Amino acid sequence: MKHGRIIWEGAGHAVTQAADGRVQLADGRLLREDEVEWLPPFVPGTVFALGLNYADHARELAFKAPETPLVFLKGPNTIAGHRAETERPADATYMHYECELAVVIGKQGRNVSREDAWGLVRGYTVANDYAIRDYLENYYRPNLRVKNRDGCTPLGPWLVDRDDIPDPMRLQLRTRINGQLKQQGTTADMIFDIPALIAYLSSFMTLNPGDVILTGTPEGLADVQPGDVIETEIEGIGCLTNTIIPARTSCISNT
Amino acid sequence: MKHGRIIWEGAGHAVTQAADGRVQLADGRLLREDEVEWLPPFVPGTVFALGLNYADHARELAFKAPETPLVFLKGPNTIAGHRAETERPADATYMHYECELAVVIGKQGRNVSREDAWGLVRGYTVANDYAIRDYLENYYRPNLRVKNRDGCTPLGPWLVDRDDIPDPMRLQLRTRINGQLKQQGTTADMIFDIPALIAYLSSFMTLNPGDVILTGTPEGLADVQPGDVIETEIEGIGCLTNTIIPARTSCISNT
Repeated sequence: MKHGRIIWEGAGHAVTQAADGRVQLADGRLLREDEVEWLPPFVPGTVFALGLNYADHARELAFKAPETPLVFLKGPNTIAGHRAETERPADATYMHYECELAVVIGKQGRNVSREDAWGLVRGYTVANDYAIRDYLENYYRPNLRVKNRDGCTPLGPWLVDRDDIPDPMRLQLRTRINGQLKQQGTTADMIFDIPALIAYLSSFMTLNPGDVILTGTPEGLADVQPGDVIETEIEGIGCLTNTIIPARTSCISNT
Repeated sequence: MKHGRIIWEGAGHAVTQAADGRVQLADGRLLREDEVEWLPPFVPGTVFALGLNYADHARELAFKAPETPLVFLKGPNTIAGHRAETERPADATYMHYECELAVVIGKQGRNVSREDAWGLVRGYTVANDYAIRDYLENYYRPNLRVKNRDGCTPLGPWLVDRDDIPDPMRLQLRTRINGQLKQQGTTADMIFDIPALIAYLSSFMTLNPGDVILTGTPEGLADVQPGDVIETEIEGIGCLTNTIIPARTSCISNT
């Protein structure tokens, strides 16, 4: 089943995807995808992101493939839902999308073996893990200016139950800018697969329900500009839409 | 005023520090510090931590002082309260305490100037930002095995209101192991001071109430072993106690 969270007529709703693709409220009412406001499909706990976890992408950036997973954290300010708008910083020269399979943890675990790792997985969604590459002085551990901007991590639209995806290590990923295909790959090309990532992380810390692992992106990066509509799509999981907008004016809250 | 959060007789309480140093419940009852269970004094949002933000510490690690703040994030699994126990990983050769002034954000802000930065501050607490240095292949952006272990970031005991600390850039920091002084410094030696850190972070992302900045540690690191009692103390802010315990047995939750 595919689960989502939306705002509709001013209230939050847990929803599912109906057979015809529409958004189904708990009371059975059906809504169009473009008439609701989308939240991330779950409340994220720790957000892990992988650097250079596809061999082709590591080559694209002229880096050798890592020997242990390169993991960094993303803050709650970065999270956005399906159909959100994301700012392009005024000073950015390179703002790259990154289509990524997001693995959502459903059960607590520590020191979990590869064999037991799938038991921790609740399901999957699509992430677009934008990077402002201007500031990337260190590929192995990107700094916050690269990866922690507001709204730079759209997630969604759907959280798909684990057992609905028989082989998550063999899914096509695609990114389109304004309808034009720009990035294409398969999760089969991950350097560290999902069980390896869960075993690695849980070897030194506890994984908790709501934690999410953004598993890295294949080659095919390109710059995006205000007005561009970015679709990151993963076979069987969903198609996440995001629109780039100009940087907003400075603001200091008085609240 | 000094604010805390505790568990007492099975329930959570917001408390303050009484004039005699005891813990005061909202109904006026007074409790001893050692008879309550301490939570972190606020619910942390994004937890920022600084690398090499004291010139003497940078020299101690044989690194040149950074030209922009070196900031990384810590996950919610790392947070612990006053008088907590923190595991020393079974495979660690170097587990170092780090006494740090923690600056708690109270107001939302983006693109905040140095001049306006103090207006975002709610108050201060003490952090002990443990590091497992064995895994430190990169000083500038430490990996999760160094800085993201469960319970490796005790915070507390008290959140002290901003206006109670006239000059937070001139406070003594001290760490004792089993009563013996091991680390001593002053916040006057920070390379990037509190207004600089707030201006820097808010220049590319929104700071929100509950976000906390661990401002780095001065020189004087030493290894800690199971059984050691670590006191990290900052003048006027408080004395945070933590006990090192051996690594627990592996566990996979069945819940």
